[in-house]
Amino acid sequence: MNGTLHGDPDVVVTGVAPLDRARPEHLTFLANAKYAHLFAECGAGVALVSPELAETPGRTAARVVVDKPHDAMLSLLALLYPEPQHAPGVHSTVVIGRGAHIGEEVAIGPYVVIGEGARIGARSRLDAHVVVGAGVSVGEACHLYPGVTLYPGSELKDRVRVHAGVRLGSDGFGYVFRGGRHDKIPHVGRCIVEADVEIGANTTIDRGSIDDTVIGAGTKIDNLVQIAHNVRIGRLCLIMSQVGIAGSVRLEDGAILAGQAGIAGHHTIGAGARLAAQAGAFGDIPAGETWSGYPARPHREALRAQAALFKLPSLLRALERLVDDRTGNVKGKEKR
Amino acid sequence: MNGTLHGDPDVVVTGVAPLDRARPEHLTFLANAKYAHLFAECGAGVALVSPELAETPGRTAARVVVDKPHDAMLSLLALLYPEPQHAPGVHSTVVIGRGAHIGEEVAIGPYVVIGEGARIGARSRLDAHVVVGAGVSVGEACHLYPGVTLYPGSELKDRVRVHAGVRLGSDGFGYVFRGGRHDKIPHVGRCIVEADVEIGANTTIDRGSIDDTVIGAGTKIDNLVQIAHNVRIGRLCLIMSQVGIAGSVRLEDGAILAGQAGIAGHHTIGAGARLAAQAGAFGDIPAGETWSGYPARPHREALRAQAALFKLPSLLRALERLVDDRTGNVKGKEKR
Amino acid sequence: MNGTLHGDPDVVVTGVAPLDRARPEHLTFLANAKYAHLFAECGAGVALVSPELAETPGRTAARVVVDKPHDAMLSLLALLYPEPQHAPGVHSTVVIGRGAHIGEEVAIGPYVVIGEGARIGARSRLDAHVVVGAGVSVGEACHLYPGVTLYPGSELKDRVRVHAGVRLGSDGFGYVFRGGRHDKIPHVGRCIVEADVEIGANTTIDRGSIDDTVIGAGTKIDNLVQIAHNVRIGRLCLIMSQVGIAGSVRLEDGAILAGQAGIAGHHTIGAGARLAAQAGAFGDIPAGETWSGYPARPHREALRAQAALFKLPSLLRALERLVDDRTGNVKGKEKR
Repeated sequence: MNGTLHGDPDVVVTGVAPLDRARPEHLTFLANAKYAHLFAECGAGVALVSPELAETPGRTAARVVVDKPHDAMLSLLALLYPEPQHAPGVHSTVVIGRGAHIGEEVAIGPYVVIGEGARIGARSRLDAHVVVGAGVSVGEACHLYPGVTLYPGSELKDRVRVHAGVRLGSDGFGYVFRGGRHDKIPHVGRCIVEADVEIGANTTIDRGSIDDTVIGAGTKIDNLVQIAHNVRIGRLCLIMSQVGIAGSVRLEDGAILAGQAGIAGHHTIGAGARLAAQAGAFGDIPAGETWSGYPARPHREALRAQAALFKLPSLLRALERLVDDRTGNVKGKEKR
Repeated sequence: MNGTLHGDPDVVVTGVAPLDRARPEHLTFLANAKYAHLFAECGAGVALVSPELAETPGRTAARVVVDKPHDAMLSLLALLYPEPQHAPGVHSTVVIGRGAHIGEEVAIGPYVVIGEGARIGARSRLDAHVVVGAGVSVGEACHLYPGVTLYPGSELKDRVRVHAGVRLGSDGFGYVFRGGRHDKIPHVGRCIVEADVEIGANTTIDRGSIDDTVIGAGTKIDNLVQIAHNVRIGRLCLIMSQVGIAGSVRLEDGAILAGQAGIAGHHTIGAGARLAAQAGAFGDIPAGETWSGYPARPHREALRAQAALFKLPSLLRALERLVDDRTGNVKGKEKR
Repeated sequence: MNGTLHGDPDVVVTGVAPLDRARPEHLTFLANAKYAHLFAECGAGVALVSPELAETPGRTAARVVVDKPHDAMLSLLALLYPEPQHAPGVHSTVVIGRGAHIGEEVAIGPYVVIGEGARIGARSRLDAHVVVGAGVSVGEACHLYPGVTLYPGSELKDRVRVHAGVRLGSDGFGYVFRGGRHDKIPHVGRCIVEADVEIGANTTIDRGSIDDTVIGAGTKIDNLVQIAHNVRIGRLCLIMSQVGIAGSVRLEDGAILAGQAGIAGHHTIGAGARLAAQAGAFGDIPAGETWSGYPARPHREALRAQAALFKLPSLLRALERLVDDRTGNVKGKEKR
């Protein structure tokens, strides 16, 4: 971060806050002239200010002029708010099954239940009420927030972060209708989560039926997402809230799915492809393309169709006039 | 409620039930002639009956003729079913962190975990397995149902009701792509829930990144809703099931979002505006207006476009005939 | 299953695995020529192979030629992976309310909380952190996975399987606006789940307001589904992930709702009807029909309308040419 300091060089800040509630111990930022009135009253210790707003009147003890104040702020966040260190230790109420292996320096909170033969890697943290199924493997430096359930058949690699209420490895939705009832298909595949994945609160990911469900390394998943059995997700994908991915879908590396989008079973979303919010993909999407709409189409085509749709009522009227007009002409000719 | 009593004035009822299972101790109602056959067999103690059905044959001990029996019934529910009183007390299994403050007459159930420095207001009730993060503040007379997680940074005012499995204050979905990976943006804003809010089961509300996420007083939120970081929701809004609200959206007072609707990031929904079920808002919606569809448009315009869409196949055929016809005409002229 | 064995008749397999990771103790299958390269390298003990691929080169110890290898595999799964038997017993940490009745041979895991007067049927299994509300009845041979919450008013018949994080019987979303606030309507109806129902992870089903919410026998529900108050679901329905069903909807026997579909309040979906993924039903759907789109229409009609929509931009241009052309003709005539 290259910036120019104006004001008191000795100010110390210990946190960040928005303009309207920053105090002398806070860092804040001003990147848009429409917030100048808040800046005028702001008592922050230091403000990051964009060059064109460098002279905005205000009373912060110091200001740093920097090209992109918001980006600079985000970079500083990790310094000002280091990950809290948790004292290692296993709470006295933790229930641990036979043959389970607990790594070094783990922190396991109250009422956690760890199944038979499960493995918890070194320096991992399991918050209150986490349930780790029999035989499940959790890598090193993972963080499972309160109330996470890992069904048997789940396997987490290192540095996986799983938010509260996530259910990994539940049975997929598979039945065979015979003898007048839906017979359940046993699910015996695994649910594998590669390293550096983050999974948002209350998201559900099913285990595979025979094959595995796999979430690729470095992929990030938001809250309330559903990922069905046998789905394969590549590396570094972004999957936003309430997305639904049906069985056996393939998501290639770096694909991005926006909120509430859905993908029907067995299709492939190519590397780096993007699916817009609420879009419904009922077929493959080529690598690198952006699709939107229902059913999803290339975004440009979808936009043209939507624009045309809203012109349609007047088009219908024009066409009726044209047809009437023609008829009128003909009649006129007949009259002549 | 103004009604006219017919029959035994001394009947006592202790609960309500629908016509098909009401017994002498129950209050029931008849508001639609199509249920007259159930009414004929119904053994309820008292029935609320609309004036036009006052003479419907039946054998309830008493009937009260009233203009809107269903509304009258709803008004009586709160009298017949007062909120259960829970004996105050902290279960012996509750884990309380250092410096936490527990108010008077609270009722805290088994296996609840309360973090360091948290505050629980007087007369609040925390059901089994609730987790209250470090430093979190819960107001007076709140009710947290089983398995609720409040992350650090959450703040609940008075009389907030949070249903089972809700996750408040989880990290928002924010990453910066650099060095070939998605770097997590620390989330240090708060998740503030004002007084008299109710939040449905398994709903997730993220904390702000730097600024706060705020749910305004008296707003009601249904099950499985997602509210992203930095969203500001006004007073007395209604947000129905499975709605998704992306980051930094503003919902002004009294706005109503129907089920499965979505709002893209940074837009504003004006006071009293309504978004129809499954609608996708990709822009601002003016106060007081009703929008629907994908992408959302004013409801009347969306209805016209949808109606036109379903006339489109026949329009296409008509147009083709017209073009052929024209060509035929021209040809005819040339022939002449 | 009728098949023809080729190779070693004495091979014993103890599990199944896909071609790419099957070993001598595994059964696998080959049903598509595009996986022949994996089959060539596969070291499975036994492979189920379709007739047209019977001669595919490979080194599995035995192969069984069978018409539909994948179906045959699914039939064998239940034999190879019988439901794990859980030793009956009640964990020492289980909290049981006054007057609760616990059936014979139940298996109740750590930190389960059972309310006053609740009943747990024989041979049922309750995993860790399950909460059973006061007065709730659970039938025989049920399985409640970790972290399930059954609110008071819930009633489960026999052999019901409820996955992790499900919330049954929460209050419906009902308020009356009066005196400047949303007054909560008490919910006193029940949430009844008939026999042989399975409910996916983190799904929410509300109790009825006065009447009941009912899920019919043999119906299967996927993850993250929302079912509102007073909904009546018939027998043997299939409801896929993230479906939302608004209040008082009727689903008749055998109806199928695909992922992310929604149904607006008070409508009826006829027996055996199907609603496509992401469809939005704003009216009744007749028995046996398949509907899709937003708003949902008969599938054939919806497909025609969508196809026409994407031809619309070029239609608009054609129409403009036609109108210009006509105008030009007239002008030409005037010039003449």
